[in-house]
Formats: sequence, structure tokens, C-alpha cells
Amino acid sequence: MMKIPFLSLLLITAVSLSAQNTPIQFVNPFVGTQKMGHTYPGATVPFGSVQLSPDTDTIQLYDENGKYIPEVYSYCAGYQYLDPTIVGFSHTHFSGTGHSDLGDILLMPGVGIPQLNPGTASDPESGYRSRYRKETESAEPNYYRVLLDDPNVLAELTTTTRVGMHRYTFPASANAHLILDLTHGIYNYDGKNVWTFLRVENDSLITGYRTTTGWARTRTVYFAIAFSKPFKDYGLQPAKKEPYQGFWRRFDQTHHFPEAAAHELRGYFSFDTDESEQILVKVALSPVSTEGALKNMQAEIPHWDFDQVKREGQEMWNRELGKIKVEMMNEDERVNFYTALYHAFLGPTVYMDADGQYRGLDQNIHLADGFTNYTSFSLWDTYRALHPLFTIVQPTRDGDMIQSMLAHYDQSAQHMLPVWSHYANENWCMIGYHAVSVIADAYAKGIRNFDAEHALEACVATARNSRFDALPDYIRLGYVPEDKSGNSASKTLEFAYDDWCIAQMAKALGRQDIYAEFNARAGNFKHIFDPSTGFMHARNSDGAFLPGFDPLDTHGQGFIEGNAWNYSLYVPHEPEELANLIGGKEAFGRYLDSLFTMSLPDSYFEKTEDVTREGIIGNYVHGNEPSHQAPFFYQWSDRPWRTQEVARMIPPRMYRPAPDGLGGNDDFGQMSAWYLFNALGFYPVSPGNDRYVFGSPSVVSAELTLENGHVFRIETRNQSPENVYVEKITLNGKLLDRAFLRHEEIAAGGELVFFMAEKHE
Amino acid sequence: MMKIPFLSLLLITAVSLSAQNTPIQFVNPFVGTQKMGHTYPGATVPFGSVQLSPDTDTIQLYDENGKYIPEVYSYCAGYQYLDPTIVGFSHTHFSGTGHSDLGDILLMPGVGIPQLNPGTASDPESGYRSRYRKETESAEPNYYRVLLDDPNVLAELTTTTRVGMHRYTFPASANAHLILDLTHGIYNYDGKNVWTFLRVENDSLITGYRTTTGWARTRTVYFAIAFSKPFKDYGLQPAKKEPYQGFWRRFDQTHHFPEAAAHELRGYFSFDTDESEQILVKVALSPVSTEGALKNMQAEIPHWDFDQVKREGQEMWNRELGKIKVEMMNEDERVNFYTALYHAFLGPTVYMDADGQYRGLDQNIHLADGFTNYTSFSLWDTYRALHPLFTIVQPTRDGDMIQSMLAHYDQSAQHMLPVWSHYANENWCMIGYHAVSVIADAYAKGIRNFDAEHALEACVATARNSRFDALPDYIRLGYVPEDKSGNSASKTLEFAYDDWCIAQMAKALGRQDIYAEFNARAGNFKHIFDPSTGFMHARNSDGAFLPGFDPLDTHGQGFIEGNAWNYSLYVPHEPEELANLIGGKEAFGRYLDSLFTMSLPDSYFEKTEDVTREGIIGNYVHGNEPSHQAPFFYQWSDRPWRTQEVARMIPPRMYRPAPDGLGGNDDFGQMSAWYLFNALGFYPVSPGNDRYVFGSPSVVSAELTLENGHVFRIETRNQSPENVYVEKITLNGKLLDRAFLRHEEIAAGGELVFFMAEKHE
Repeated sequence: MMKIPFLSLLLITAVSLSAQNTPIQFVNPFVGTQKMGHTYPGATVPFGSVQLSPDTDTIQLYDENGKYIPEVYSYCAGYQYLDPTIVGFSHTHFSGTGHSDLGDILLMPGVGIPQLNPGTASDPESGYRSRYRKETESAEPNYYRVLLDDPNVLAELTTTTRVGMHRYTFPASANAHLILDLTHGIYNYDGKNVWTFLRVENDSLITGYRTTTGWARTRTVYFAIAFSKPFKDYGLQPAKKEPYQGFWRRFDQTHHFPEAAAHELRGYFSFDTDESEQILVKVALSPVSTEGALKNMQAEIPHWDFDQVKREGQEMWNRELGKIKVEMMNEDERVNFYTALYHAFLGPTVYMDADGQYRGLDQNIHLADGFTNYTSFSLWDTYRALHPLFTIVQPTRDGDMIQSMLAHYDQSAQHMLPVWSHYANENWCMIGYHAVSVIADAYAKGIRNFDAEHALEACVATARNSRFDALPDYIRLGYVPEDKSGNSASKTLEFAYDDWCIAQMAKALGRQDIYAEFNARAGNFKHIFDPSTGFMHARNSDGAFLPGFDPLDTHGQGFIEGNAWNYSLYVPHEPEELANLIGGKEAFGRYLDSLFTMSLPDSYFEKTEDVTREGIIGNYVHGNEPSHQAPFFYQWSDRPWRTQEVARMIPPRMYRPAPDGLGGNDDFGQMSAWYLFNALGFYPVSPGNDRYVFGSPSVVSAELTLENGHVFRIETRNQSPENVYVEKITLNGKLLDRAFLRHEEIAAGGELVFFMAEKHE
Repeated sequence: MMKIPFLSLLLITAVSLSAQNTPIQFVNPFVGTQKMGHTYPGATVPFGSVQLSPDTDTIQLYDENGKYIPEVYSYCAGYQYLDPTIVGFSHTHFSGTGHSDLGDILLMPGVGIPQLNPGTASDPESGYRSRYRKETESAEPNYYRVLLDDPNVLAELTTTTRVGMHRYTFPASANAHLILDLTHGIYNYDGKNVWTFLRVENDSLITGYRTTTGWARTRTVYFAIAFSKPFKDYGLQPAKKEPYQGFWRRFDQTHHFPEAAAHELRGYFSFDTDESEQILVKVALSPVSTEGALKNMQAEIPHWDFDQVKREGQEMWNRELGKIKVEMMNEDERVNFYTALYHAFLGPTVYMDADGQYRGLDQNIHLADGFTNYTSFSLWDTYRALHPLFTIVQPTRDGDMIQSMLAHYDQSAQHMLPVWSHYANENWCMIGYHAVSVIADAYAKGIRNFDAEHALEACVATARNSRFDALPDYIRLGYVPEDKSGNSASKTLEFAYDDWCIAQMAKALGRQDIYAEFNARAGNFKHIFDPSTGFMHARNSDGAFLPGFDPLDTHGQGFIEGNAWNYSLYVPHEPEELANLIGGKEAFGRYLDSLFTMSLPDSYFEKTEDVTREGIIGNYVHGNEPSHQAPFFYQWSDRPWRTQEVARMIPPRMYRPAPDGLGGNDDFGQMSAWYLFNALGFYPVSPGNDRYVFGSPSVVSAELTLENGHVFRIETRNQSPENVYVEKITLNGKLLDRAFLRHEEIAAGGELVFFMAEKHE
């Protein structure tokens, strides 16, 4: 365990929030929008349903032969910072994911003859897209603006939870127009648009929906769009001719005709504009119906005051971001911190109408009775640090998210908690059943706004499912056999951790039978440890380890998004046991040192997914999640201070306040949440218990204002970039003689002081 | 006007309902299922949402090159009597229409390895379809049975309003199964299935939906299917591979996997069966959701008693059909009468859940507050005689249907009443805006369970629509110009009649302004009468009559489903004026005589739609509707008795109690309603006023039991096949000196006596 070294205090110049400063000033929404961050720069409110953001390309998921186009991966959030054109502004985006969907309901202003196709980046005149210059583009939380050069239109975006608001400043024109493209989408392909439906209710209101398949197999987004000025003309056209026309042929449907429905619809709405005339548009979304969208619009933006919407959304951000007031060592760090906190609060997103109705997994309409329903659970990522962060600064939301997951369970034909769910769908992305971790962690940390008994039942049913990833084999053999289910070693390790979570929850609820069952399963990680190599190693049904072992390779070894070096550390619930397996504290220390310092040959890097070269430190792949807890594992080695070194080494390499500043996908806030915990000086190594393991804070000080009204302060003494070692820690003035903080100690409020030093003991 | 000839009374032997007889015994659901009737033989209750019926072929609407396949027309109801195989049993069918859709949710029993494709009629072994023998097939109202030879399974079908119930008697088998085909449909084509969704809720309950495009551009049918015995195995497969598989690939989705969604799904559910073991299936439909379907099932069939469902549905039929107790001259006529009444009560169909929720034209969910919501309004047909029939024997339903049409209007992006609407869609089939006729007729006849002011507003808005079929030109010029809108002569004539209806309604409501506007428009028929030929004749915008006039041709002359000979009589609201136009009573009589007796060359018949050769009498096309009032127009000629001759001449040629007994599409009951009125001795020549013009009854007697409790009896004296002439008529014992009956005279109850004679005066 950690030894706390003693050193003298030094004063440093801290950058803090002064009275006139607000947290949003230190958020840079462009962070992560270049290369692999997969974030979007557009407007949204905390956990908002609408993410109104520019899309810069229309790369398809498949080419015309059905072959995957790898370039699409860069466009998970629809935007790449250096792209020269903007296609338009769509209303739904994932933040930081490594797969995609969404990009619904694209609007784009234009001048001249409306072109109902996006055109190409190399020839933007061929369609409705436009060139723009980076210097005209800016973004703040809940506000984005850019000057579109081709039509010479200034575009500004802001939102409420369920409504996007656009403000377009046009030149004088008799042919000003807005393009509405319902076929546009992220990860689009031929056949993705299942159906699009549009009604012109009157000369300034339209309604409709878009149903897609893809990552979400059946997904419908309903909308209502109101214009501040009546359009003088409009036209709606299917992108492709429908085989059946029927008696609709009697109408000229392409021009000023108020009803359209087709596999792929596009349209334009045109206006006369004076010089600098502003046209505003409100786009309300609903998971339920166009009626729901209209009600959401009325509930959230009953007026046309763009600045008010922007201001109110920014006030929401300041309230949420203000839950942590932080002093950092420099300006860049402050931007890093608040941008990370911003990214951490982008999801999961609210998924219900203002009246509480939402579409369930069964595609029926349900009422969220007594909770806010959320969607977009990227659980393989977010159970690690994001939900633990929520247990501290968003406990009510975390409980609501659990209620949302239980509703998913109740509606599931599989009788399972979500794995990766979005928009009333399970997409089954990645492995494990980590919803149980979120639940057990929340329960361990005193969150009670969900039915714990029901939640335990859901956890157990999920973990006993007979159809999911060879669970019956796992239960029978004690490991997932690779010949039955691929990525078996990763699955075995993650299942074992999840099982430990269930055991903790069962124990807390006095369910000894369930505790015994799952506590036994929690030890299953041992069954794939290969003493001959010292690594975790996939096995087949016959018990034999998989031949051709290569601990550097992330492919073909029974792992996913990690090689044996990284994944062998995936025993978050039993680090001491893991250290023993690997050969004791010293061997464990050497293992970790090797991981962080070895050189990964380029040939192996090329096979590593989702990360830039900077995303790898030695062979430690921070850009992927499986070993996010590894830096803190030194605490179980003979060299605990190395945690402090690594904790301070990673951020400057992986988190920079620049578009290309993220060393990997932000993964819906998990990467950001890691940064935040790390910056505060502790990390939830084992979500499901109440402990946070100490690292080395990079904050100068931080003040966490909790929902229960308590304030938890983190102070550092002698903080500096060089003073990475923690000499001692006091809690409320008393020396702490342990390497971890308890959740209840945070929840009670108080003051944690880190005494920093230049050298370790 | 009619002169009533005097003749002595003769006694004839009447066939009446004896005490032990029930009306359903005289219904033959096979009538019209061969050739052009387009009826279906399956099970349904009066105005039921579910029409559970065998489909005998899978002809597509288009071939692979997108070319129309004319043979599909014979399958508007999914069934042709002489076909040698049955594909399966689907749950929705139109009765007698001349275009199609539906055929949702097909089930088919089988034995052996399940085949997830229908196979072909010539090689039924290649798929799940089966041969059957006509002698094993029988049908009654709400009951159908057939022995499927290939699997040797007896299939029996019955229904409630929203639930179909199947009873399958299997041989002993370890491979008994039921095929569920969500891709099957009537008027199917590649691309018609927009999306299909299926969940296996447990081992005996599945839910899902099917969304199609086509005649209804956006149509979703939700269902819940319960099996009386748990299936031992099941499999669900897309008919075509979806381009995107995503992480669902991790599962074997084809076998025992509870969730499926794809453009086109099929599946099987298998059982072990003992010899003669019966497996029952309940299939509940909903326009709202699978939750709605489940609730409908629970509300309507909470048990597994097939015979009870059959019995209760047949009791419903006996109650409805028993509203008219009739004595006929022979058994065939009795079957004709009750089969026609049966066909008249097949639609419009109930379109809402048991709790009153339904999907509106805007695709939102609405509550039918205080009325039953109906759909499938084939108004170009049914305004003529079917809705007038409803004003007598179904007045509450008729008012509810009007409320349903007003809800459609309220939800319409076009702000129009329905033209031809089904399943929350307008399909715009045929011409005119005849909903106004239904409304005005109901109002004229004292039906008050709808908001008359709102209805008049809807009528006026519809008739003033600026986008529909060149209405602005019609209003400006007084006729629809052919160069602006095809079928212009038919449109002018029908608009003029509809405008008269609006005028009548406005007058009754004291809206003199509206009356004046539409009474003027009602005279527009005069603007296309060509005195040089003596026919109605299409004109262009410049006023010139269309060149190349041919009064026999139904094509290229500005008419639709009728030639100039027939359509020139389409002035139902002003027969006297029409007679004057044509040259007075004598000329009018000659015109009518020519119509009924001339010989239509085969070359012209071939261009006449929707009718068999028997469907034409002379050049009078009874199989189409435009001149359905023509037989009664003799009353405005110099030879009124000819109405009586024609009234008795038409039925034996057009209505026979045999599968091929209908001389044209039944058109959702319009043809049957014509028969019924004609049989009772009077006809609603001008729906919108309260008059029924006398013809010649073919009943011996009839007793109409009205909703208000009154009984209206129709008696004949001296009735015989030869005594077609009406010598005199008494109402409640008093001689009637007019050629028409008033609606209020029926509504008040009483006795109408026709004194029949062999010769006219």
C-alpha cells in the first residue's frame, strides 16, 4: 500500500475562477474534434436530448458493393475540425463514441436555386454544402457560430433539452432558403433510412419523423420545426423515386404540397430576405410523436428570443460545471478540467418528452413515473469512471439513469439490462454486463432513488442469461471458452468483475444465496491466468490455452481493444489477488513498469484501435479503456509512488486543450471522467465498492458542492508541476494512513489536503 | 312522375325466415369470390377490424422491372375461388374494392421442415402453401374452415372485432409448426414492406408490427399473437439480408432468438402434436401499438374457447342482419338478400383500440371521444347507396363514421375530408369529395351524433381547396378544364352534385351565404352539356369541347369508369333539369331506353373496367357506379314504368348466389346496397335530400327494425316474378300519390304496401 512521503510545502501561482469568471469560459468544445476524439463542437445543454452541431462530411458506412469504408470512423460525431466544408446542422450526435448512428434532421441555409443534394467536399457548389473559414467559427457550451461562405450566411446554434434553435443571418435575396434533409445521417448507407414522413402544417410549421435502421436497429426521431418567418415557397422530394405512386400522382407533390412520405425525403423552404435579415428556426425532437415534439417546443421555447435560449442553456452549464470549482496550475489545465467536465456531462442523454412519455425498448410508449428517462448508455466505457463521478456530483441523475436501465430491463425481450443502448434500442456493442457495476456502485455509495431489490433481480437475470456470449459455458467452466465465443479472455475477466459487483450488492441487501453464487463467479479471472507466461490467456472448451500466444497483439488472442499486457491487469475488484498471481508485489511492480515504459513496435500499434500514437504510453493504451485502473495498481506493488508519477505523466500527453488534444475517443465522457478523477487525486479502481484510490492531484485546489448541500474541498500544499509525489494526506485535519478515500467521507463534506513533494520517500 | 298502375292481387309462395332460421344461414360468403367480385370468404364480425381470410396467391403488383402485372387485380381480396392452393390466412382484407393493400400478418400451419417462403401455386411443395379441395372448404359469417391437404391440417377461423382466432387440428407430428409471414401482403411489391418488427415475449406470446407503403403511403399494423400451447422451438429470419448487422452478429438470431427487426421478416413456431391435437392462436391487431393489441386481446378474447368466439360473432351478425327481416320469392333471392346485407356491413371498419385510441392521419395517437372511429372509406362508391342504407339501419354508426371523417379532416394537412381513406392514410383514389354527400344525407335524415356546424365547415373547406383537382379552375370557369385536370367531365359532374349537397346542408343550418355559393356551383353540370351531341362532353380551358368525341369510349373522353352515355346521366340532384337538357321527357325516355338496350361492341367492352360481360346491360354499366341512379331516372321521363322493368331485370343478371355471382366489384358494399334498396322497392337517387324514389320491390315483404324502436314494414300484394309493375302504393293504408318515399316516413315506422301487377297502365 501507499507510503506517503514527507516534503516541505511550496507556494505556486494558481489559476482560479475569479468572481467575474464562469466555468463555461474555460470550456473549449473543439477539444477532441480533430483526429480520434470523436467529439462534436455544436450546441447542447447538460445531458440534453438535442445536440445541434455542424456535420462536415457525408462519408457512407458502406460503398455500393456493401464494403465497409474505413474513413467513416473519423465521422462518428459528424465533424472533423480540419474539413473545408460544412454539410449542414443536424440535431443528434454522440460524444466521443467509437461507432455511430444519428445525425438526424439536417438543416442548411442557402441562397439561389435550392439544391436537394449535399454535394461533395471537393465541389461544394454541386450541392447544398458550403465552404467556411476556421476564423469565422467559434463555439461555447450551448452556442456555436460559423459564417458559411458560399451563401454568405452567418449560422448560429443554441438549444434547450429537447429543442434546437437556429439563427441564420442572410444577405438580401429573393432566393434565400433552408434545406431540410431527412436522408442525411451519420454512418448512413443505402437502406439505412427506413422511412421519412413530413407534413407542412402551415406556412411556418412542419412536422414529421425519420425512422432508421443500423446501430439502433429500429429508431424513430419525431420532430416539429417552426420558422420565425413564413416561407413563401417550399418543395419536398424523395431522394429516390418510390416504385408505387398510386393516386398521389394527381398532385404536383414536388412543389408547395403539404404531405410527403418516402424512404428518403429532402425539401427546401424559401424566403425573401433583406440584407442581414435573420431567420430563426426551432426544431423540437421527441421519441414519442410529432405531437410530443410540438409540446416540447411549446414547453421549452414558447418565444423567439435566441439570446435568451443561449443564456439559459449557458446558465444550466454554469450551474452543472460549477459543482466543481477548481484552481489549476495554469490556464491550459483549467481549460482541460472544465472541458473534461463538460464532456462528462454530455451523456447519457434525456430521452423523454417534457410530459414524461418516452418510447421503450418494446417500441411502446411508456411514462417515466417519478424519474427522468435517459438513453445512450455506453456502458463498457462509462461504468469505469463516469458513473462513479456521477455518484459524487450527479447522484440523482445516476439513480435516474439506473431507473432508466431498469425500465430497459423490464421491456427487454432478452430480460437483460442494457449493454450499449440508445434510442429505445439495444445495440449490443462491446462486452460484459456492466450495468450491474453502475447499479452496485450507486448502491454502495448510498444512492437510493431506485428500487434496489428490483435492480438486484435485474442484475442476476442478466448475468444468468442463457443466450448471451456463452454465459452457460462460462458458468459451467468458470471461463468463456474461445471456441464458443470470441474475445473470450476479455469476457471472462469482465464477467468476473461484474459478478463481484452483483455479489457486493447482494451482500448489502442481505441476499446471502446470491452473494455466494456471484462471489464464487467473481474469482473466475483466475481460471484464465497462465502461470507459464504470467499473463491472462484465452482457453478453449477443452481447457487448453489458445495456441500462438502473443502478449502484444490485440487481435486473435481472445481479447478486445487491448492486448494481454493490458488486459491481464483487468481484475479491478481483486488487485491484491492479481498481484499475487503475477508473483507478488515486486513482480507486480516490474510488470507495471514494463507496461508503462516498454516500446510497442509500430506493427503492433497499427492493430491498436481507436487511439493516436500519443494515446499509448509504452504499451499502456490509455486511449482504450481496459487498463484505465492500471496506473493506480502500483498501490498494490512494491513501488506505490509510481502511481503518482504516472498519474501526472498521462494528462499532458493525453489531454491537451486543442482540437487534436484527446489521445483517443472520449467515449461518452469516460476518458474525461478519468482525467477529472485523476486531477482530483483519486480514482474509482473498483466501482462497486465505496473506495477511491489515491493518485497525485494535478489541481491546486477543488471545491465540490454536493447535492446534499455539503462541500468537499480538496487542497494541495506545495503543488507544482514537479512536485508530483504525495508526502501525506489529511482529511479534516487528521492524517490519513490509507491509500484510499471512502465515498461517505466525500458525501459528508470536509477537507482533504494533499501535501506534495518533489521526491518520493 | 310515376303513374301507379292498378292490377288485381295474386298470392305467391314466399320464402321467409321461420322461427328456427337465423339470417346468417342465408349468407354465402363465397358470393363474389370468383372473377370480379373481389370479396373474401373469411371470418369477420360486422364492421370488424379483423378480416381473417385465406389468401390463394402471391401475385406481385410489379414485376422485377417495375412493370404492373395486370393479374394482381383479381387478388384485391387475396382470394380467387378456383385457385388450387392456399398460401395462408391473413388478418386484413378489403371487401370488393378495385384496388388493394392489406393482407397483414399471415399464418399458415405446416408439418415437416418449416419452409420460410410461400412457394408457387404450380409447385406448392416448394414453400409453405398447401393444396386443398373445394369440398373441404366452407364458410359462414364469422367462420371459415378448410382442410389443408399437404400438411393434413384442418384450419378453422373466427374473429371478434379486433382479434382473429385460429384453430388448427394437426396430425401426430414432431414437426408441426406455424409459419408467420410478415412480408406477405396483397398488392405486394419489392419495397412495399417498409419495416417489420417482432418480439418473442415468452414461449406462447409474440408481438410486433408491420409497416408498409403503397396504396396507404404509411401504414403500420401492430399485433400480438398468443398460442394455446407453448412452442418448443422457433426461428425468425429476414427474407433478404440486411446490409448492416452490427453487434447482433454475436447472436444466432435465426434460431430461438426473441428479437427480430428487418425490412421483411418471416418465422416459424414449432410443436409436438398428437393425432388430432388442436392448436389455437389468437391474433389481436391494433392501429396504436403492440401494447394496444395485447389489451385488445385481453378485452375481447380472454379465454381459449373458439366455439364461443364463433358463436358470439355469429350472434352479432344475426342481430345486425336481423334488422331487416325479409320474405323473398325463392331461396336464391333470400341468399342474395342476406349476402348483400352481409356485404353491406363489412365496412367501413372499426379503427381504434378497445380503449378508444387510434392512429390519426397525422400518425399521432388520438382518443375517439364519444364515438367509434372507422376507417376504409371507399366514398366514391359508398356515398351512393351504402351510406343512405346506413341512415336507415345503422344511423348511429353512420354518425360515428361522419365523426371519423371529421377527425380525418381535423388531422389533414390538406384540410380536406376523406376521399378514399384507410388506416390513417388518404389514398386519393377516384374523384369528387363525396364525404360531403354522406354528411348532408345524414343531416337531411335526422342523424345528429356529429357536430353539424363543424361538418359544414369541413365540407366548405374541402370544396374550396386550392390544390385538389383543379378546383380553382372549376370555380372560375364553372367546369373542370380537361387540359388542367384529366377526367374533367366526370369531375365537373360529381363536383356539381357534391356542391348541391353542401348547399342543402347550408340551407338546413341557415347559412344562406354558403347555400348561395354552392347552389350556384350545383348547376355547373350544365356547363359541359353539349347540345350538338346531346351528351355531357369535356371542355378545355378555352371553352372548346374536347375533339374526337366518342360517347361509347370510357377512355380519353374526360370520363372515368364510365362513357358519355352513362356519365351524361350523372346529375343525381337535378334529374328534371337533366331531362330538360336532353330534350324533355320523351327524349329522356328514349335516351334511357337506348342506354339499356343498345349493343356495346366488344371493342368497347374491353376498355370497360371492373366488370364482367354480365355487368353490362345494353350500354348500362351496373358493375361500375356512375349510373347507379339511372334506372330510377325513368321516373322523370314519359315512361316511368320502365324503372320497374329495369329494377327487376338487373338483379338476376348482376346478383346471383354463386362465387361468380357478382357482375362487378362489390365496392365495399355499394353494389350490395344498390341491390338491397332495389329489392325493397325504392332507391336514394339524390343522397342529400330525404327522398327515396320508388322502383319495383323484389321482396315479398320486409320488416325493418329501426334503432329508434320503430318498425317499418314493406308489404307486396300480388308479388310474382312476372308482376314487376307497381299498380299503387299505400303508406299506412293511405294511397301515395307520389313517386318517392320520405326518410321521416320510414323513421316513424309504419307500413308501405306495393300493389304489384303484370302490366303497366
